[in-house]
Amino acid sequence: MNKTIYLKNRPSGTPSLNDFEFKEENKPSPDEGEVLLKSKYISVDPYLRGRMRSGESYIEPFKVNEPIESGIIAEVISSKNPNFKEGDFVNGMLQWKEFQVSQVAGLNKVDPNTAPLSAYLGILGLTGITAYVGLEKIGKLKEGETLLVSGAAGAVGSIVGQIGKIKGCRVVGIAGTDEKIQKLKNDFGFDEAINYKTTGNIGESIKKACPQGVDVYFDNVGGEILDAALENINKFGRVINCGAISLYNATETPMGPRLEGTLIKKSVLMQGFTVRDYIKEFGPAINQLAAWLQEDKITYSETIVEGFEQTPQAFLDLFKGKNSGKMIVKI
Amino acid sequence: MNKTIYLKNRPSGTPSLNDFEFKEENKPSPDEGEVLLKSKYISVDPYLRGRMRSGESYIEPFKVNEPIESGIIAEVISSKNPNFKEGDFVNGMLQWKEFQVSQVAGLNKVDPNTAPLSAYLGILGLTGITAYVGLEKIGKLKEGETLLVSGAAGAVGSIVGQIGKIKGCRVVGIAGTDEKIQKLKNDFGFDEAINYKTTGNIGESIKKACPQGVDVYFDNVGGEILDAALENINKFGRVINCGAISLYNATETPMGPRLEGTLIKKSVLMQGFTVRDYIKEFGPAINQLAAWLQEDKITYSETIVEGFEQTPQAFLDLFKGKNSGKMIVKI
Repeated sequence: MNKTIYLKNRPSGTPSLNDFEFKEENKPSPDEGEVLLKSKYISVDPYLRGRMRSGESYIEPFKVNEPIESGIIAEVISSKNPNFKEGDFVNGMLQWKEFQVSQVAGLNKVDPNTAPLSAYLGILGLTGITAYVGLEKIGKLKEGETLLVSGAAGAVGSIVGQIGKIKGCRVVGIAGTDEKIQKLKNDFGFDEAINYKTTGNIGESIKKACPQGVDVYFDNVGGEILDAALENINKFGRVINCGAISLYNATETPMGPRLEGTLIKKSVLMQGFTVRDYIKEFGPAINQLAAWLQEDKITYSETIVEGFEQTPQAFLDLFKGKNSGKMIVKI
Repeated sequence: MNKTIYLKNRPSGTPSLNDFEFKEENKPSPDEGEVLLKSKYISVDPYLRGRMRSGESYIEPFKVNEPIESGIIAEVISSKNPNFKEGDFVNGMLQWKEFQVSQVAGLNKVDPNTAPLSAYLGILGLTGITAYVGLEKIGKLKEGETLLVSGAAGAVGSIVGQIGKIKGCRVVGIAGTDEKIQKLKNDFGFDEAINYKTTGNIGESIKKACPQGVDVYFDNVGGEILDAALENINKFGRVINCGAISLYNATETPMGPRLEGTLIKKSVLMQGFTVRDYIKEFGPAINQLAAWLQEDKITYSETIVEGFEQTPQAFLDLFKGKNSGKMIVKI
């Protein structure tokens, strides 16, 4: 049999296990040109919450009563396609199923000898590319500048900060537990880290940690932390709006102080960033990240949850900040 | 004697005549290297409100009990500087005084035979340059796109719209009186114009006037009109945050819907724009604007108020939208 996970209904506010449905299906067989895949590692990511809405976004919404999909590393179990053979490992946007057939469009082979398979969902996948391309193309981070990162202990944030250090910047991270704060400073080399849950005044904490002000803010969370970052932004500052996890589960329009005054006063750039808009940059980004990884200039952390059945819970745990680094389900 | 206008106190909320003080001073005499200037045309601009605050901004605040300054066209009355002679006309950041002495730094000669003197405060001055450089450098407006402009009948807005038409775009303006709406369509060639004061729903009106969505939004007003523009922004849209006149007199932090979600979903760029950051572009911008003016491809409107004593009132009238095009005081 073949376990699968469907979107049962569109979540209202914070998603719950009731929004997902497990179904048992028959294991499919590949037709000519197709491959049969067995899922090995499933990536769960905050942006998937956006696809559970019906509204317009940068990526097509999931349909109710259809399988959810995300980045998955799978093994080729049987192949009717000359380009893939049994035992190959591939990375692709695949459905939350133990077994599935693919027509191979969008599948990329990955080499388990170069890096652990799960790394292809993280530092050598969209996560790493997001960090690298966002900083390069929007942040245009320069040596000696101050880089502030929110969601800093998350998959993207922890890589962003390390790239900042490689580039010779002061790097300050924001995260939500003392354990993460220690990790940022000890494992990832951040100069300073702020626990936004225990600090009395996030704006003041940023000011203290960034005595020269903030030149580049890589935002994974939006909301009040974005406001506080902008209070401390320098002239010609750049904000990479990569994520807004603090708002994803909002059921009413989130309100906040208007930002246009600050943008004008400080000649600040804010740009919404979706890595899929930069497909041409993927190759160079992966090459650079792989080089840094081999030179031990960069490291990564993963939170690996075991068992296909745990996939929905792992996704829900993202919104509680239970992951440190990339959240991955191992099957 | 020599009439002058000082900042009496920092306005709280909407400025009033009480915030200004007229003083009579002696007419000064130039020292070696200096010139004596007689003010001919004074530019009053919304951004001056920002300089009346004590807080940090992109330009130094005015001091209480010191003269206000803005762009002024003046005549050289007597000169002790070899580069300027009696009868020359100059453009510079000068004080609100009938007569003043200048050490000539920052003065540029202007030719009354090339264009009317007042044009050097408008289309051939910072106003025109703001429109041109903002569209070119941040908007990166392309043929066939839809350009939305707020404060469209104002000094900058009316030029922005005309440049949009020269570039082959659909141009939609937002203004606050039916007279201005007619002017936008009849005199400035806008494709469509919206009276934000009488339209029931500004978001719906923009949607109707921009059936292909908004590619570039040149924002002079901020606030709810910015929100409505972002409701209609296209993927890869660009917002030039040039002004926020709707917020300049706010006494409490203006609140609004958070915009980061839209920025991310649509890969939108918002950038605060201050023309003084682009001094290198001034020359090419003026050349292009002067060429268009001579080719009759572009026109401009002015609201000229007569009398030095009217300067504070002319400034206050900006916030009531009493001007159409550039607001100028003629002395």
